[in-house]
Amino acid sequence: MSGPCFTLAQLAEKFDLKIMGDADTKIIGVATLATAGKNQIGFLANSLYKKQLSQTKAEALILREADAELTTIPCLIAKDPYVAFAKISALFEIKSLATPGIHPSAVIDSSASVDPTASIGPFVSIGASSRIEANAVIGAGCVIGEHCHVGANSELVARVTLVTRVQIGQRVLIHPGAVLGAEGFGLAMEAGQWLKVPQLGGVIIGDGCEIGANTTIDRGALGDTVLAEDVRLDNQIQIGHNVQIGAHTAIAGAVAVAGSSKIGSYCLIGGAAGIVGHIEICDKVRINAFSLVTHSITEPGEYTSGTPLQESREWRKNAARFKHLDEMARKIKGNNPKED
Amino acid sequence: MSGPCFTLAQLAEKFDLKIMGDADTKIIGVATLATAGKNQIGFLANSLYKKQLSQTKAEALILREADAELTTIPCLIAKDPYVAFAKISALFEIKSLATPGIHPSAVIDSSASVDPTASIGPFVSIGASSRIEANAVIGAGCVIGEHCHVGANSELVARVTLVTRVQIGQRVLIHPGAVLGAEGFGLAMEAGQWLKVPQLGGVIIGDGCEIGANTTIDRGALGDTVLAEDVRLDNQIQIGHNVQIGAHTAIAGAVAVAGSSKIGSYCLIGGAAGIVGHIEICDKVRINAFSLVTHSITEPGEYTSGTPLQESREWRKNAARFKHLDEMARKIKGNNPKED
Amino acid sequence: MSGPCFTLAQLAEKFDLKIMGDADTKIIGVATLATAGKNQIGFLANSLYKKQLSQTKAEALILREADAELTTIPCLIAKDPYVAFAKISALFEIKSLATPGIHPSAVIDSSASVDPTASIGPFVSIGASSRIEANAVIGAGCVIGEHCHVGANSELVARVTLVTRVQIGQRVLIHPGAVLGAEGFGLAMEAGQWLKVPQLGGVIIGDGCEIGANTTIDRGALGDTVLAEDVRLDNQIQIGHNVQIGAHTAIAGAVAVAGSSKIGSYCLIGGAAGIVGHIEICDKVRINAFSLVTHSITEPGEYTSGTPLQESREWRKNAARFKHLDEMARKIKGNNPKED
Repeated sequence: MSGPCFTLAQLAEKFDLKIMGDADTKIIGVATLATAGKNQIGFLANSLYKKQLSQTKAEALILREADAELTTIPCLIAKDPYVAFAKISALFEIKSLATPGIHPSAVIDSSASVDPTASIGPFVSIGASSRIEANAVIGAGCVIGEHCHVGANSELVARVTLVTRVQIGQRVLIHPGAVLGAEGFGLAMEAGQWLKVPQLGGVIIGDGCEIGANTTIDRGALGDTVLAEDVRLDNQIQIGHNVQIGAHTAIAGAVAVAGSSKIGSYCLIGGAAGIVGHIEICDKVRINAFSLVTHSITEPGEYTSGTPLQESREWRKNAARFKHLDEMARKIKGNNPKED
Repeated sequence: MSGPCFTLAQLAEKFDLKIMGDADTKIIGVATLATAGKNQIGFLANSLYKKQLSQTKAEALILREADAELTTIPCLIAKDPYVAFAKISALFEIKSLATPGIHPSAVIDSSASVDPTASIGPFVSIGASSRIEANAVIGAGCVIGEHCHVGANSELVARVTLVTRVQIGQRVLIHPGAVLGAEGFGLAMEAGQWLKVPQLGGVIIGDGCEIGANTTIDRGALGDTVLAEDVRLDNQIQIGHNVQIGAHTAIAGAVAVAGSSKIGSYCLIGGAAGIVGHIEICDKVRINAFSLVTHSITEPGEYTSGTPLQESREWRKNAARFKHLDEMARKIKGNNPKED
Repeated sequence: MSGPCFTLAQLAEKFDLKIMGDADTKIIGVATLATAGKNQIGFLANSLYKKQLSQTKAEALILREADAELTTIPCLIAKDPYVAFAKISALFEIKSLATPGIHPSAVIDSSASVDPTASIGPFVSIGASSRIEANAVIGAGCVIGEHCHVGANSELVARVTLVTRVQIGQRVLIHPGAVLGAEGFGLAMEAGQWLKVPQLGGVIIGDGCEIGANTTIDRGALGDTVLAEDVRLDNQIQIGHNVQIGAHTAIAGAVAVAGSSKIGSYCLIGGAAGIVGHIEICDKVRINAFSLVTHSITEPGEYTSGTPLQESREWRKNAARFKHLDEMARKIKGNNPKED
């Protein structure tokens, strides 16, 4: 009942923000503009929600200086309101601490090592030659195979699998159902039968990465599949063998990245996008949702493929024409197919 | 060997159907038109399969009145043959009943409560302050975190994870590998590093919902991610934080719905479709398979995006032209780019 | 430290290859052209990597006869360098052998049978009437339901679920998180509510198949979902109920196949492609990545849908025109809409 409580003055000082209005306003929680009530602070970061400003019942707001004139509610002025909100929000997060020690049901190979400050949950198994470092949390039902390493302060929430040769850095967070280090999809056709190509490499996950629920990252065929530091993967992403992802790149849910492709740093990949194999994407590229990248990208910028959504009746007529687009182009006077 | 047996007369009475032909015809099982044999009843619901009617060896058929003249086999006449088939089919389903009680291997926090009629399978863990109601079934290997609630008569088949603050209604069915209540993908960029936005909300699943295998539903950042009653999700679907889905909406496999979007009631979302974040889709919208919804939809109807499949040689020529479509349009006399 | 070591002469004899250069060259490992070093053999199969040939520090190479003139490094000449590489690579794979026997934590129904040579890992549960054959490996955390069968020499790596009525052939490899035999997505609408259609069938997986991590294969509604022999599925694939897949077909990651569709033999389905329900694809069809198959395909060949990736600014202009493509076509003199 008696959770944390802060005045605007305290929050402003803590996070170096400017106050407008009553500095003694008490805040006991965070909320959206639409749902905020007594003693809750709301925020305006996405201009889509500006129209909710006049209706909000928030006790206080976090917003940009330019938006402050839109309201008479007490405000914290932030250069980046979303960042300020994230930090203030964290003050109200209740996290139960994992208990150090190994649950009696866990099965740990005699050649594995577990730091005494680490927490190993029920029904966890840890294979030969694997190491769990200080303060790491291995939640219920995780399976850690052989030759794996989980760095200090990393957390595998629950039911995560590290198959083999998976190196997890420090402060990495892996959500339930993720599978790292499964054999990549390497096949050669011989005499009408598929022959399996051994997958001798591993997976390396840099410090501070986050891996979403049910995301899969295959181990390398030769060499490793590598995520640099602070890479953020959402849920249900598929990362093929020997993919490399640069630092601070964020990938939204349901994206598929085929084998041996290389994605730069500070890239943003939209949801359900696809990236074919054996290509390179340079730093600071943004791929929009549901787009397919079929060739290397050497210039930073924003890229898209696909067609707009239409009512199906309209769409069908246009889609039928797409099948004859080349023909259409040839019929247009002055349009030279050789130009393309 | 001696399973259930019904005459057409019994089935007709039970489900209020009309009989054509011998009412004493004995039925001991259901099958497709193509595979049905002695004492099996087949059905014709999808007109694609009408051509199989002349070849079928079914002992009896379920079909629409209008199709009855196409056959001399004894029939049950139904307004909706698929519904009638579903009900008759259920008579032949063998379900093993879960045994009430807690498997000795399960690990249950002392502050959690489990109804004595509930069934808790092997290797299940249940966290602090969680409650499992009457007749609920928690299958092998499920992980239930803190502050979760599973309503009466709901079933988590096996290896389901409820991370934290997940409220499951009554008669909900969740298939293996599903992960509900993982932290949403909330990130803010500060000084070149990603800052995690706390995910303080939960997940609420209405009565009678179904959640497919390996589907993921993230918990809300502020407020909850909500599925109303009777929502049906197929496998491998990704539902972002704070999404709201209206009653009776059905979503096919591999769909991705980005955060904070709102889908109406009685919508049908085709397989592998995508829905971007922060939009609204009104009731009774049908999105075709593999289409991307990039803006709010305010009119019921059917919507599509994408292009038709072609032989790659043809496709390549047309796709190359797509890259110059605006230029083409400008060359056409009378076509004013300002119009668009 | 002292792993396997072979001379080129030994490798050439073992795999029937031709040698160019010093036959006594010693090989202690395999690597890519870019990373190979002392006593490691590299390979050139994909011409994309030909440019790395001049820089490689590999001790020896596997390549096609036609490429041999590009290097002075000792070579093994192979008709298919990737096949030769796969076989040589396997000589250097370290696999830990599973120990026969049942881990004491496993929970096995009294009516299930487990061959004494099979290996059952920790936290495995096996349901009524299921059978595990000789030398099969059931890894940690797998859940096997009722009436399942795992053939000889098959391996379920870890955390695999076979729900019910799943028949796995011999030498099948299933990666973590895969779910086979969950109820298909069968729904009928009655009086504004969804009615569940019972899923009475099972799943049959042929000999030598491979199923990727977090892939889902639903059981049939009536009859079974069937994969013929040597079918290879990558990660995160969704296979709907009653799908049939022909022998030697390979499907890349994140593909979705809707219910009751039939895919031929020797097909290659690219990553994140989609296949709608109730259609047939003949043998030897190649579907490119991210393409949607909306109708049956009766001719072998390569097929694609979608549009090329462009800078978003360019893409937006072209995409806007796509919405009026039919209108454009009608404006072009001599273009008759009836033709399409």
